[in-house]
Parts: sequence; structure tokens; C-alpha cells
Amino acid sequence: MTTASSETTTTHWTLTLVCQDQPGIVHAISGAVVQAGGNITESAQFSSHDTGTFFMRLQVEAPGERAALEGALAPVIAHYGMQHKLDVVGRPTRTLVLASKAAHCVNDLLFRQRAGQLPIEIPLILANHDDLSGLAEFYGKRFEHHPVTDPESKAAFEARVLQVVDRYDVELVVLARYMQILSPELCAALEGRAINIHHSFLPGFKGANPYRQAHARGVKLIGATAHFVTSDLDEGPIIEQNVVRVDHTRSAPELMAIGQDEESRTLTQAVRWFAEDRVLLDGARTIVFR
Amino acid sequence: MTTASSETTTTHWTLTLVCQDQPGIVHAISGAVVQAGGNITESAQFSSHDTGTFFMRLQVEAPGERAALEGALAPVIAHYGMQHKLDVVGRPTRTLVLASKAAHCVNDLLFRQRAGQLPIEIPLILANHDDLSGLAEFYGKRFEHHPVTDPESKAAFEARVLQVVDRYDVELVVLARYMQILSPELCAALEGRAINIHHSFLPGFKGANPYRQAHARGVKLIGATAHFVTSDLDEGPIIEQNVVRVDHTRSAPELMAIGQDEESRTLTQAVRWFAEDRVLLDGARTIVFR
Amino acid sequence: MTTASSETTTTHWTLTLVCQDQPGIVHAISGAVVQAGGNITESAQFSSHDTGTFFMRLQVEAPGERAALEGALAPVIAHYGMQHKLDVVGRPTRTLVLASKAAHCVNDLLFRQRAGQLPIEIPLILANHDDLSGLAEFYGKRFEHHPVTDPESKAAFEARVLQVVDRYDVELVVLARYMQILSPELCAALEGRAINIHHSFLPGFKGANPYRQAHARGVKLIGATAHFVTSDLDEGPIIEQNVVRVDHTRSAPELMAIGQDEESRTLTQAVRWFAEDRVLLDGARTIVFR
Amino acid sequence: MTTASSETTTTHWTLTLVCQDQPGIVHAISGAVVQAGGNITESAQFSSHDTGTFFMRLQVEAPGERAALEGALAPVIAHYGMQHKLDVVGRPTRTLVLASKAAHCVNDLLFRQRAGQLPIEIPLILANHDDLSGLAEFYGKRFEHHPVTDPESKAAFEARVLQVVDRYDVELVVLARYMQILSPELCAALEGRAINIHHSFLPGFKGANPYRQAHARGVKLIGATAHFVTSDLDEGPIIEQNVVRVDHTRSAPELMAIGQDEESRTLTQAVRWFAEDRVLLDGARTIVFR
Repeated sequence: MTTASSETTTTHWTLTLVCQDQPGIVHAISGAVVQAGGNITESAQFSSHDTGTFFMRLQVEAPGERAALEGALAPVIAHYGMQHKLDVVGRPTRTLVLASKAAHCVNDLLFRQRAGQLPIEIPLILANHDDLSGLAEFYGKRFEHHPVTDPESKAAFEARVLQVVDRYDVELVVLARYMQILSPELCAALEGRAINIHHSFLPGFKGANPYRQAHARGVKLIGATAHFVTSDLDEGPIIEQNVVRVDHTRSAPELMAIGQDEESRTLTQAVRWFAEDRVLLDGARTIVFR
Repeated sequence: MTTASSETTTTHWTLTLVCQDQPGIVHAISGAVVQAGGNITESAQFSSHDTGTFFMRLQVEAPGERAALEGALAPVIAHYGMQHKLDVVGRPTRTLVLASKAAHCVNDLLFRQRAGQLPIEIPLILANHDDLSGLAEFYGKRFEHHPVTDPESKAAFEARVLQVVDRYDVELVVLARYMQILSPELCAALEGRAINIHHSFLPGFKGANPYRQAHARGVKLIGATAHFVTSDLDEGPIIEQNVVRVDHTRSAPELMAIGQDEESRTLTQAVRWFAEDRVLLDGARTIVFR
Repeated sequence: MTTASSETTTTHWTLTLVCQDQPGIVHAISGAVVQAGGNITESAQFSSHDTGTFFMRLQVEAPGERAALEGALAPVIAHYGMQHKLDVVGRPTRTLVLASKAAHCVNDLLFRQRAGQLPIEIPLILANHDDLSGLAEFYGKRFEHHPVTDPESKAAFEARVLQVVDRYDVELVVLARYMQILSPELCAALEGRAINIHHSFLPGFKGANPYRQAHARGVKLIGATAHFVTSDLDEGPIIEQNVVRVDHTRSAPELMAIGQDEESRTLTQAVRWFAEDRVLLDGARTIVFR
Repeated sequence: MTTASSETTTTHWTLTLVCQDQPGIVHAISGAVVQAGGNITESAQFSSHDTGTFFMRLQVEAPGERAALEGALAPVIAHYGMQHKLDVVGRPTRTLVLASKAAHCVNDLLFRQRAGQLPIEIPLILANHDDLSGLAEFYGKRFEHHPVTDPESKAAFEARVLQVVDRYDVELVVLARYMQILSPELCAALEGRAINIHHSFLPGFKGANPYRQAHARGVKLIGATAHFVTSDLDEGPIIEQNVVRVDHTRSAPELMAIGQDEESRTLTQAVRWFAEDRVLLDGARTIVFR
């Protein structure tokens, strides 16, 4: 099929599209792909009845450069007023990790990233404690420790976050059990690109030491929720949730250890889906094209 | 193998014991069992660090009548100030079912009871709607319909509940999606022997139409919680919980259908454990000897 | 509510398509939908690397009669040599249920069908035992009992199956714990439209009384597999699987009761997906567009 | 820290007992505990109907030295012909880890051991490949690499295993994805104290590349089984099993990555239960007092 001069290597692209729902979108987009000589290898779409929004995620094999595919898509994107993102499948997402003392989430992210199971790169780990410097070193990651002890040092830490986001063109900020509340300004600046993890219980418990409360109420399930960061604490759009069964014999510290396992795997899963462009925002909800 | 005089058929007993924790309890109890010629076939115990209470559930094979085993146990029970219950394994628990319109929980209870998987007997189903009369008839259960439309008819319904509890020596009242709030007086009268089921979400949602709220927040897990009824609505001691995974494609009605499945199996499981004397109260928690 | 001229009621269609994978399919199909004035409300596709086959399932809202949409699709279907099925969303699938003595699967199918959670209609239940006639009657289903005791009665039973399939234009045959092995001829005649349920264990156990074997090996998980019927017993393409955790205290009969719960929900789920045109065959595998 | 007269520090003990089932055992054992001034804080027992064997696991708080408690127990143990083990709660189990190239299981064991969630100590990691030396070094564990390429080098490796078991008084050998089949002699020498992990599928697949077979059959669940090593390959008594749901979109390599997660958590769980003396053998089954 290809001639001798064919330097036109094929690239595998991810394309996500969001626009107001209306007839003809799929036909128009698939037409642009055909025009660029591409082939759709994976496709998922969803029309939200709540917001009247259309969401689509495609994987496309196409010859030639980005410009060729972008050029074919441009008129369609303009016509429908689409938000879109075109990316190479598997390109690592530039990810800033924020941490405190707890190792479990950071360890899971680093292990899986090195194992090739998590398409992210981590230019820096920023922490308000020094406990994880050895772990970072083992995995060959830069690690900065800036104590946060008062409003000034907190402002400095957040300024450093924004500086790093800017300098390294960071696409995702992961709060891997970073135990400081972000300022509303930082939440706003990172909207839609910062993921937090927190424990979850049925029923929910407000206030300090939730594992002790969970023990006192004798809950039978504990879990974790990964969600986008918003200024409404722990109430951002949910990306992923998991639970595990427990019983009356578990002490509060044991519940905590079990909960941490759920936190690790839930956060890593949410990060993976984000890095694969599988998570799209629909108001207060997420569309996750698993 | 047995001689003519062998009226000493062996009975299989369940024995539950609750008292203040202290050394020597197991030795004293097992001594009484030995004295009665019995054999412990199953045993579970738990010492609550929260309340300093000791909980034990035994299954015992013993010859002779109840009086023989009771007699051997009596001094130990008196010495330790134990609450206790001695019952024959498999004896059906007399259970009053309260219902409204929804069939799923009642259907599951009746099907499993008839299939021999749920050791309860149901002298009566009391409902504030007539929708389930046919289902009750199919399973050969008495069914009474008393509309609840105002304070007077509600008081009459609750009076009938207490009358039935008294007349049939009811041991367990199951609210199988009975959609009326019980009065504080009825909650108090049924304390520790009434089980309710309600939907559960992470995070929890207060107020009307929780499935619509869950849909709006894009939850990824929905579930159900079976708990003892207390006057603090939906906050009684938890007996059992389950969840199931959902995604963004589910409408609010689909979430409700999925949630109802969890409600059925969670309620039936809680009822089974109660009927098998596996559920004991430890303040606001339950001990469930599964 | 509608005026005399309003013949343009909108219908909600399901469309499934299978053909050799190649570029341009999505564009061609979506073009036909646009041409018919339709709108794609749900779409899922999959390209099998194993067989080079393309699978697609669409839901389409379109005005007018079936002929209009069929007409627009016809050239595309012809061009790509597609197998296709066009159906109205929610139309009940005509389903023949085969049963023996066990009630759990049949009960679950009938209860959910009546509750509006399972889009099937059941013209007949055929059984080789009479045990379930009362259950069928309660749900208002015709029930025929034909004992199978020898090769002749077995052949008669199978002939009746084919006769019913033919007379009622049956689309799906469900073996709801029908405990007879189908002849190779019947398996062939029902290929791709008969679903069976069987228990599953890790590791698998061959031969009689698998629950006793599972107990003897002390398995920690038991489950169920719903699969298409093929002449290779219990080895047809898998549609759905579930497991549940058990422990050493469970007797073989208890394992069986637990396993039956998994059988019921797994079979019902598989039937639901089939009835919603979500299950497509890819050689020995199924594609399930959940 | 203690004054001269206070030699009565309390120790928290684990006691496991196995003997032929008969009346009076619990009474006799609890009597010995009382005699030693101890208190039973946790207790689980099981009578196997299959083998007529009685299993018990106790946790006991008792004053004084081991000899005091051993002395009180000795007559009972002798009378009933019990196998027993008395150990201090939380004492790390001396564990030899065998590895090959795959990191996932070893990483999980080392991370949790350091996090204080796994009561083992690891005097040595023995591997037939060098890939994991860096990981071992990060966690401060000794690592030896002995290639296994022929019968001679295999025999040398196994001899080293036995030597290490002997020298360090190893209590548990963990095959953390060690990809060599152990000789029958080594299996026999390590009976009841070597744990292996392998992938599990419904249905099971024999032979090479099971993940490819699982993909070809379109399985919907993949999992892992941790079991004791016996000379009957992958058929030893099962300690723990887990599964996770997958669908048709997963490639064979993706199935493998998902399966490895299950392997890690399943193996770690089995090791934890063994280290806490919660796993007892009942013929071909395990009793796991969770």
C-alpha cells in the first residue's frame, strides 16, 4: 500500500471533543478523519441530558504530522464550537505531585510509573515535610521540601506550585495525601487539572479523625474517593471510588491501614484515566470513558 | 446404637452471652457446657475496647431438655451478670414485615424464606398500601392493608403493629421499604428488634430524591445500609452494607433500579444474621458474628 | 395531543453492525443517520485485533417509519457487507425459558420482568419437571411440563423447543438451570441465541457435585458464568461472570445456596444485555457493550 | 523502666491448637489460661466435619514469662495430643523471599513491611535474576542472585534455599513470582511453610500464556490465588483468592497488568495471615481465622 518514499509514519492519536449536542456531529468528525486518511480505532460518546452537552473520545490512527489531522478537523471544530484536545496516545502527562508525610499514595504512583503502567512524568515532588525524600530519590525524582507552618509559608508553598506548573508546563497536579487545604485562588487556578484523594464512608463523617468515628459507628464498608479539587472542600466532581468490607474486629488504626490501600489504588486509577484523556467534566459530574 | 430408654435426643443450641469483660468467662461457660454433657461446635467472641463489654456466641450440641442446659448455665450467668439467649439452631424467628408499595425487598424475603434459606416465619405483612397483596397471597402469607394518611391513621397503624408484636410474640420487625417514619414511641418499643433498609451513597445525600442527587454528582458507587431502627432517622447501628459500581451513563431511574437490588440483598442478609442470633449490640455499633 | 398531520413521531432505535474492519465505516453510517434525519444518542464500537472485525452499537432517534431509516442505511450496509439488526429500544425480546426443578433463576427472571427491569416477554416456560408450575401461574406465564426420562422423551422435548421457537418467533432461549444436556443438533439450531448459566470456581472442578469438590479444596471464591450454548458443554462464549467470597465455615449446601444467588443475578444480567442488543459474537469471545 | 518487684509485665500471646475434636477442649484450655492468670482477648475455633479435627486460635494476655503459660498449658496439650504454637503477638515472622524478574509482588511485600503493616522480617531475597537488586537495596534487604539455567544450577539454588532456611531459622518461604518449579524434595521439605501466588481465571486455563488464552475466551473476571506449595503444581491448599472485572477491550498485556495487581495484594494478604498465625491446614483445605 505504501510507496518507497513513504516517510509518512502512522501516529496513534487521542482526540476528545466537547460541544453542545446536536445532530451530525459524529458524521462531521468522522468525515474529517477520513479526509486526513485516518482510521478510528476506538470511540466513545455520551450525550448528557442534564446539560445538553455532547462528549466524545476517539483514538485515531492517521498518517503524517499533527498539522494534517488538525487541519482536517479545524472546520468541524469551528463549526460546532468544540472544545478539543488532540494528543499522541501514550505521551506521558506532565504531573506535579504534592505530598506531606504519608507514603502510600506516592509510592504507588512512582512504582507504577516506573513499571510502565502509568503514562505520567513527574518533574518534581513538592512536600511540606521531608519524610518522603528517600522514596523520591530511589525512584530518581526531584524532591523539594518547603515547610508550611503559617500563612506566609503557605503562600510561599502555593506560589512555588504555580511557578512549577508554569515552568514545566504541568498538566496535572496530584494531591497525594497532601494535608493542607489549598487556597481558593489556587483551586481556581488549577480547576479541572488537580486531583485529590480522600477517605469515604457510609454514612459520611464530618470533622476530625473520621476513622475513629467510623469505628464508633461500626461501619461495614470503608473506601476512598478521587475527585477534582474545587474550593468546596472534598466536594469536587468525583472521578473514581472504591470500597472494601470491614467488620467489628477492626480497630481504628487497622481501618486506617485498610483505607490507605483503597486511597492508593483509587488515586492511581483516577490519575491513569486523566492521563489517558478519559475524564471530561460535565458540570458537577465527570464523564469517564473507561 | 441407642437403647430403648434413650430419650436423650441431642439438640443443637445457639447461645449468646453479653457481660462486662473479665478473666475466666470462657472457662466458666465451657465448664457449664461440659457439665451438661454438651459439645461446643462453633464459637465466636469479641471484647470491645470501647465499652469494656464481652460478647460471645456459641453453638452447642447437648443431650436432653432445655432445662438441663439452662440449669448448668444458670450459676455462671448469675455470677457474671450476663444477658443471655438460648435458642434452638434453625428455629424460625417470628417476623412481622412492614411494607408500602415497593415489592423488591418483600419479594426477596418471601422467596428465600420459602426456599429454606432464611429461618424466619411471617405471621403477617402489614402495609399502608394494597399493592403487595397478590405477592403475599402467592406465598401464602396473611396481609393487612391499613392506609396511613393522617396522624390518626398513623397512630392506628402503629397501634396495630404493637398489637401484632404482642399477639404473635414477634421477635423481629422488618421495615421492607416501609415508607413511613416511625414515631419515637414505636422506635423505643422496638429497640434492638426492628431493622430498616435505606440506600447509601458516597458522599451521603440528605433530602428528597437522593438518586437524582447522586446522578447530579456523578457518583461511581451506590449501595444500601441495613440498620437497627432508632428515633434518630437512618442513623441506627449498622448491620450490613453493600455497594455496586455505576457510571455516568446511568439515569436516575436506572440508579434506582440498581440500588433496589442492593437494598434487597442487604436487608435479607441482615435479617438472616439476626434470625441466626449473630447480631449483638455494642452501644452504637453492632457485633456481627458472621 | 398530536395533530392529524403529525405522522413524524420520533422513534428510538437500536442498531448493531458487524463487518470487516476498514476506514470510513463510522463516517458512512453516521452519514446515513443524518440523511434519515436521525440523531445518534449512544454509540459504542470495537475493532477486534484478533479477527479484524468491526463491531458497532448505536442508539438513534429518528423521525418516521422503519422503512425510512432502513432505506438510508441500506447502501452502507450493502457496501461494507454488514450484518445488522435494527430494533426499537425497549421492545421486549421474545424469550423461551427452559427449566427443571430449581426455582432461583426462573423466579429472578419473572420478578424483574414484571418489575419492568428486564425487556423480555415469555410466551412459555418449558420444564422437564412440574415443580415450578405454581410460580409460573403466579406470574401469569404459560407452563408446560414434559418429563425427560429416556432418549425418546428427550427428543420429544427438544422437538417441542424447536416448535415453540418457530411458532412464537422466539429470539432467545434461556436455560434457567435446565438440567439436561442439549443435543448437538439443538445447540446448532440455537447458536448465538441460547444462554446457559453454570457455577464457576477457581480452580475449576470437573465432574459431579462441584460444590462438594469446592468445599473439599477450601475455595475462597465461588461464582457463576453465563455463556452462549454450544455443543462444547459449558465452554461457549462467556457473557457475564460474578463471584462472591466464602470461607472455611461454609458447608457444601451453604456454598450451593450462595452459588445460586450468583447464578440468578448473573443469568438475569446476561439476559438483559442480550435483550438490549448489547452482546455480539467475535469468534469464541463476546463483545458486551455495557 | 520497671522496678525490682515488677517482673510481672503482661505479654500478648497467640496460641494455635489442632487436635481431634471431642468435648471439653475449650474448657480445658480456658482453664489453663485462667490458671496462668491470663485473659483470652480473641478466640476463634472450627470443627471440621470432613476430618473430625478441631482448630483453635486464641490471643491471650498473660503475666510473666513464656514458661509460666507453657507450663499451665502442657498437661492439656499432652492430654488431647494437640499440635500447638505459642507466639508473641506481632513478632515478625522470619521470611525468605524467592524472586525472578517481576517486581510487583516483591515491591508490595517490602513497602508494607516497612510501613509496619506486615509483621515479617526478611533476612534475604534469593533470585535467579538480577533485576530486583536495586529494589532490595532501597529497602535495605540483602539480595543474592544465583542464575538457574540447568539442572546443576537449579540444584545449587535449591540447596542455597535450604541452607538459608536452616541458618536463619526461616519460618516462611514466599515465592513472589519465582518462576521456577520447585523439586518434589524441596516441596516436601517446605511443606506447610511455603506460599506461592498464581493467576486465576474462570474457567481455568492450562498451559502457556494463560493471559492470551483468557483474552481469546473473552473472560470477564481475572484474579489470583495464593496457596501453599505442594509437589502437585498450583494445586496446593488455597489461602486467599481475589478477582477483578475486565471486558472485551482489554488486550492480553493489559490483562496481565491487571492480574499482577491482584497477585500482589493476594500474596501480601496470605503472607500477613500466615505471619499472624491465622492459617491452619485441614487436609487439602486451609482454615483461615481472619
